[in-house]
Amino acid sequence: MSGGEKPAVHIYCLLFDGYETLDLMGPVEFLHGVPGARLHYVSHLGGAVRSTQGFSVATEPLGELKPGSVLLIPGGAGTRTLVHDTDFVEALTRWVQQSEYCLSVCTGSALLAATGLLNGLEATTNKRAFDWVRGTNPPVLWQGTARWTHSGKFYTSSGVSAGMDMTLGFIADIAGIDEAQVQAHRCEYLWNQDPSHDPFSASSAPSPQS
Amino acid sequence: MSGGEKPAVHIYCLLFDGYETLDLMGPVEFLHGVPGARLHYVSHLGGAVRSTQGFSVATEPLGELKPGSVLLIPGGAGTRTLVHDTDFVEALTRWVQQSEYCLSVCTGSALLAATGLLNGLEATTNKRAFDWVRGTNPPVLWQGTARWTHSGKFYTSSGVSAGMDMTLGFIADIAGIDEAQVQAHRCEYLWNQDPSHDPFSASSAPSPQS
Repeated sequence: MSGGEKPAVHIYCLLFDGYETLDLMGPVEFLHGVPGARLHYVSHLGGAVRSTQGFSVATEPLGELKPGSVLLIPGGAGTRTLVHDTDFVEALTRWVQQSEYCLSVCTGSALLAATGLLNGLEATTNKRAFDWVRGTNPPVLWQGTARWTHSGKFYTSSGVSAGMDMTLGFIADIAGIDEAQVQAHRCEYLWNQDPSHDPFSASSAPSPQS
Repeated sequence: MSGGEKPAVHIYCLLFDGYETLDLMGPVEFLHGVPGARLHYVSHLGGAVRSTQGFSVATEPLGELKPGSVLLIPGGAGTRTLVHDTDFVEALTRWVQQSEYCLSVCTGSALLAATGLLNGLEATTNKRAFDWVRGTNPPVLWQGTARWTHSGKFYTSSGVSAGMDMTLGFIADIAGIDEAQVQAHRCEYLWNQDPSHDPFSASSAPSPQS
């Protein structure tokens, strides 16, 4: 919704077949509540996109991002093939370059890393998929212990639920801590506010999964 | 997905225009991971259904539930009108009667209460909408302090995020605490495991919202 006085902030939620539901829908819940936020549900080619959890969402094809936009990239099983899709990665690289902020959740950071734009920056991912993600692009400074990371315009989170904590951290950075608390309270969400506190760190995680 | 050895458990996720995204998608994330779970995305009349957060999901019309099924009812702004829709409430009453378990999240309990089937049982809701929900059907034993409640075949949760904690509690009850922990860990979710611990209790909640 674009508020009366607040300028619109366009947020592009990037869907692809086999994204993990909560990776996307957790952040969506909080981002939508921010004054001025205007959410767009988009995919590379448009049309119906199916989550790993089996429902289909209607999407618009993503051409260009408006100036000052936010790009949200979920993870999920679909990343395993998408990370090798050169057409997709080429388009993603352009979108990431156009974004003012770029947020990835879980294995969404493997897609983001495939653009090369994370090289030399700190990032994290689902700790159960840590070795796979790190293996896709070693030049990223992969953090084995982090609920989420923030480096330049990039925010990356640990697995699935961690995307909600990261999103509230992002909202706090761009709109103030009070706004983040408003969104958490509206949803009766117990925000894990410390990005360095990671009970699921890579050193204690079991075998990888998507 | 129906597992090889586990019998299928059919879970009907009931969508309606103006449901709150995380009310539905949080539980969906965990329920889908339970061995044997088979999720159906349904609505009263079928077709594309739009969440409060602005995306459309394709749904099947819900006729009858299969025996032994679970019915999941989210809340959201759409409940404010739907609670007065006699055709919908009549259909919902039939679906609830057919379900083996029935879970509501947030103001979804107002819809569930409208069937009369919660009368005399404990239930809860979003604490910011507590007075409105209670006013729709006083014979329910509304709990002003509860992260979630369990009474007979009914599980009801507090606002939005509480649905995830409730769902893990439900999974623990039907599939064992180990299965609930597996799902929480898979999603790197910090489960608030005590249903009576409610930091957002009605006595401290601000003015109501949907």
